[in-house]
Amino acid sequence: MIETAVHLRVIEETSAYWRVVFDSPPFNIVDAAMIYGLQDLLARMEASPSLRVVVFESAIPEFYLSHFDLTGKTGNITTAVGPSGLPILIDTFVRLTKSPVVSIAKIRGCVRGVSSEFVLACDMRFASRENMRLGHPEVGVGLHPGGGGTERLPPLVGRGRALEIVLGANDFDGDTAARYGYVNRALPDAELDEFVDVLARRIASFDRRAITAAKNLVNQVSLPSADRLLDSLNSFQKALSWPEAQERIQALLERGLQREVDFENRWPAVLGTLLET
Amino acid sequence: MIETAVHLRVIEETSAYWRVVFDSPPFNIVDAAMIYGLQDLLARMEASPSLRVVVFESAIPEFYLSHFDLTGKTGNITTAVGPSGLPILIDTFVRLTKSPVVSIAKIRGCVRGVSSEFVLACDMRFASRENMRLGHPEVGVGLHPGGGGTERLPPLVGRGRALEIVLGANDFDGDTAARYGYVNRALPDAELDEFVDVLARRIASFDRRAITAAKNLVNQVSLPSADRLLDSLNSFQKALSWPEAQERIQALLERGLQREVDFENRWPAVLGTLLET
Amino acid sequence: MIETAVHLRVIEETSAYWRVVFDSPPFNIVDAAMIYGLQDLLARMEASPSLRVVVFESAIPEFYLSHFDLTGKTGNITTAVGPSGLPILIDTFVRLTKSPVVSIAKIRGCVRGVSSEFVLACDMRFASRENMRLGHPEVGVGLHPGGGGTERLPPLVGRGRALEIVLGANDFDGDTAARYGYVNRALPDAELDEFVDVLARRIASFDRRAITAAKNLVNQVSLPSADRLLDSLNSFQKALSWPEAQERIQALLERGLQREVDFENRWPAVLGTLLET
Repeated sequence: MIETAVHLRVIEETSAYWRVVFDSPPFNIVDAAMIYGLQDLLARMEASPSLRVVVFESAIPEFYLSHFDLTGKTGNITTAVGPSGLPILIDTFVRLTKSPVVSIAKIRGCVRGVSSEFVLACDMRFASRENMRLGHPEVGVGLHPGGGGTERLPPLVGRGRALEIVLGANDFDGDTAARYGYVNRALPDAELDEFVDVLARRIASFDRRAITAAKNLVNQVSLPSADRLLDSLNSFQKALSWPEAQERIQALLERGLQREVDFENRWPAVLGTLLET
Repeated sequence: MIETAVHLRVIEETSAYWRVVFDSPPFNIVDAAMIYGLQDLLARMEASPSLRVVVFESAIPEFYLSHFDLTGKTGNITTAVGPSGLPILIDTFVRLTKSPVVSIAKIRGCVRGVSSEFVLACDMRFASRENMRLGHPEVGVGLHPGGGGTERLPPLVGRGRALEIVLGANDFDGDTAARYGYVNRALPDAELDEFVDVLARRIASFDRRAITAAKNLVNQVSLPSADRLLDSLNSFQKALSWPEAQERIQALLERGLQREVDFENRWPAVLGTLLET
Repeated sequence: MIETAVHLRVIEETSAYWRVVFDSPPFNIVDAAMIYGLQDLLARMEASPSLRVVVFESAIPEFYLSHFDLTGKTGNITTAVGPSGLPILIDTFVRLTKSPVVSIAKIRGCVRGVSSEFVLACDMRFASRENMRLGHPEVGVGLHPGGGGTERLPPLVGRGRALEIVLGANDFDGDTAARYGYVNRALPDAELDEFVDVLARRIASFDRRAITAAKNLVNQVSLPSADRLLDSLNSFQKALSWPEAQERIQALLERGLQREVDFENRWPAVLGTLLET
């Protein structure tokens, strides 16, 4: 049995407005338990007809969601299918994008790889100007994004910036991410909570039918196809078995990935010299 | 007979460059007369082979075009079809986007809902930095955009910012709109007239065949499909009959919408608490 | 025989990272020789399995690539087909976008028309804040973009800004181009070389298979279709024979285009009054 309760907590501010707090110390790693926690949350959201808006935040100041688990704790999330008929990892993100409930990522700390793909699947993204490190380091690990990053970034930031994000494999701070359109806005950290809370309560006061119809219309012209998402995930699955990827993953784990706070904070910075002695 | 002459005035700066001035005090409401005024203008534009560029501006400092009339003066514009075979409201916007004549919105004042859809159908948008309030408040009125906003915003500003604009239902000032790509540029109010005039006269000096070919090529990869536009309008029509929408519309009219200047200026700000006693 | 060696020089920093220097004084005009030089380069890139990244820069401070040759030295590049089956001009840009090798445009100086289309075909664009003049002046010459500009700009900068760039036919400086998303970033001139070098060496250290897979996935959702590119080129070919285009081209050549440094630097500025006496 997978314990999901410890991975994310739901705070029901009102029946229309929930806050979901990622709380899986020390790093909020995205492993099978975290994804199954999101699956449980989605089921609960779908059973809550009064709900209008969910804000996703982290209980850990330095880590929003850190990245895909690289120690083998990902279970069957890329192979078993979820309610949409898509593999559970993609199912989670696709159902979030199509939900009648509005999702807002309130981002502080590190958000890399599959975690970037989570915030890209949220309806809106607001970042702390002083405290965010957002990016897609997969190519620097010998892999590539597999959970929608290569599909969702180009229409959001344009091909050139999408390729810089994906091929450069480095972190983006709040101001740069906002300038690129990767997040909606970067706000001073001291203003972020109030800004998002005011927006969430405002949306929570609106009629669910109007919200749903509007979001559906926007989705019709802005979501990637399931085929494209599946191609990426299948290619990612193969990449995990590439020897060059395994060599880089081992090097990162030896250097302290998923173990040491300092390395977990800054690891994309060393990807350009990872295999040098 | 609908009086259109009083709704917009055409100033022929030259045979190649017209200014069209919205002048329907006190608010430049978008009602049937305003849309039929635009239909007449389009016919006149199509009969003017020397014309290259039209600049759309307002005679009323605080209101560019305010919003869709909510008092019943919208006639048959969402049901009767125009020359393109599409309902007149959509026909107006589609013909503007496909016209060989270049359209420039020079924006001062309030521009909400269908009025945002008008400027989104213009080829370019330049805003006063100090004096613009642009947005899509429909969802806060229990409705949703029906004249192309949900189709034109995502490719312009990305899905995340499109959803913030549409679901947040609030005003955007010039700098934020420019940062989001919602308008081309926000300029200091004192520089706006000259900037647009210089650009319009420059384009007016170019050859019509070159302008037409270039705009057609851009249109091929940037216009929404008629099917998507029709889906939105049909859904909007249904939404108008939703009781929750009618309740919100009544509340707004009672609070002063389309009557009081001060309320007309700031009404999206109250949408989050509209139905509270 | 076309001399290509003099048009661009390849500096192999490492087997994984090349710099390509445009060096065809005085203006780096894009003529048949320059395009055949790029064709030779592409063949050499395709035969270099260790190569990861190519940075394109200019040896001439004021001119990156200036623009399409208007004196008849364009040979068969718009009619003869290249290895992809597309006309050589388009073949060059399409193969660059689809190459497993990452292309970075490091831009100083003037970059207009087909040269803008070259940098739009590169994977990323970084500009000197103080020293760049980038744009599409074709419409002001009685023509229109024919090498992909009208297809690549709208998904990058949105329809409104694409139309401002294409129909306004003027230069954009680094900061404006970055604000529009036309280039990834504008950097202070003194920092540009190091920024791009660090990024290129970083990417050069990554595995080729990961780079290729990631770029392919991004390409699936971000490249224009061959049909659209061909439509533009065919339309451009016809436009070259329009009398109004020929009149403007003659006027520009008489005023000093492709002859005088000062005029070559600033010619888009005069397009609005080109045919006035």
